[in-house]
Amino acid sequence: MKIDYSLYAITERSYIGKRNLVDAVEEAIKAGITVLQLREKDITSREFYHLALQLRELTKAYRIPFIINDRVDIALAVDADGVHVGQEDLPADVVRKIIGKEKILGVSAKTIEEAIKAENDGADYLGVGAIFPSPTKPSSEAIGLEGLKRIKSNVKIPVVAIGGITKDNAGEVIEAGADGISCISSIFSGDITENVRALKKVVYDLRKC
Amino acid sequence: MKIDYSLYAITERSYIGKRNLVDAVEEAIKAGITVLQLREKDITSREFYHLALQLRELTKAYRIPFIINDRVDIALAVDADGVHVGQEDLPADVVRKIIGKEKILGVSAKTIEEAIKAENDGADYLGVGAIFPSPTKPSSEAIGLEGLKRIKSNVKIPVVAIGGITKDNAGEVIEAGADGISCISSIFSGDITENVRALKKVVYDLRKC
Ligand code: NI
Repeated sequence: MKIDYSLYAITERSYIGKRNLVDAVEEAIKAGITVLQLREKDITSREFYHLALQLRELTKAYRIPFIINDRVDIALAVDADGVHVGQEDLPADVVRKIIGKEKILGVSAKTIEEAIKAENDGADYLGVGAIFPSPTKPSSEAIGLEGLKRIKSNVKIPVVAIGGITKDNAGEVIEAGADGISCISSIFSGDITENVRALKKVVYDLRKC
Repeated sequence: MKIDYSLYAITERSYIGKRNLVDAVEEAIKAGITVLQLREKDITSREFYHLALQLRELTKAYRIPFIINDRVDIALAVDADGVHVGQEDLPADVVRKIIGKEKILGVSAKTIEEAIKAENDGADYLGVGAIFPSPTKPSSEAIGLEGLKRIKSNVKIPVVAIGGITKDNAGEVIEAGADGISCISSIFSGDITENVRALKKVVYDLRKC
């Protein structure tokens, strides 16, 4: 499976507010996101499963890769296309053994060491960040564009940048070497279609150069 | 794998207090528990995994079946002997597909309908309760010995009774038809060795009759 990581949307119910999550995701898909990740915490496994089943159906209909955050069992249960794990989740090499060779494995990395280890452990792509500070990540946790460049130059697998990315700074992120940008609120807050189109335009316009 | 469900211990860090969980479990195993289940909530997947790895090693050394609550991925990651799911966890039939035929699948049931469905969905045993009210389960949620008997007479698979079971009422529970008793605080609060021996004596003495 060849993945276009250009605009990697992460979703969770708490970001959608009053809207129906499936409707919001469908709007984002129609507007042009290229990958969907479902991330949920503080939810029963049964609820997570039912939510994932709905998004599995939707992403299959639109042929969008569907990735589950952390919960490898939910990914297997709904036959998601892949799993994304952070440094507090199951180790990447263990996950690779569980999911087999075909499923996509993404790993979060904020240092060169984590990135190289993830690549060696079988990651298909890296989620790298936080690039910029954001309400949930103070500036002390942001690695900046320099941090992104350092990691990108030390691995061969695609790098998806995450953390504080908006349409105003997405250009710099792509120019720094990211294979795609990962967004939550920049996609799902406000007008989803407008957000996705604006973000995607930045990424695709730069690619043409 | 033929399992002796007589004294099925459920453990989680919060019940152990200041003691080291692995030490507490080792004491319980030496005193005679026959199955160990690890149940953790509000823990990162990585922490859960490391805890499970330690208990996997310990239970393997003592040849005690090791079961993980809810998290099928953790069970696969540490090669536990089985998984236990409640009605709020992944559906039993889905779990059976993920874990294959060899691993033990336990399912919580408090009604005849849930029990029969679980058996049909591939459960190897049932966790039935709450039998008695307890600090965490009000009496409205307790099914009593009558509820236990009704379920037991409607399924063929072993039934492990859970909820408010102590050495003082364990006898009635076994006489009502339970294949084993499942305890948390009755094992891990106070003197673990004494608790386990007292509970096991009740179960085994009744079996001899
Ligand atoms: Ni008797």
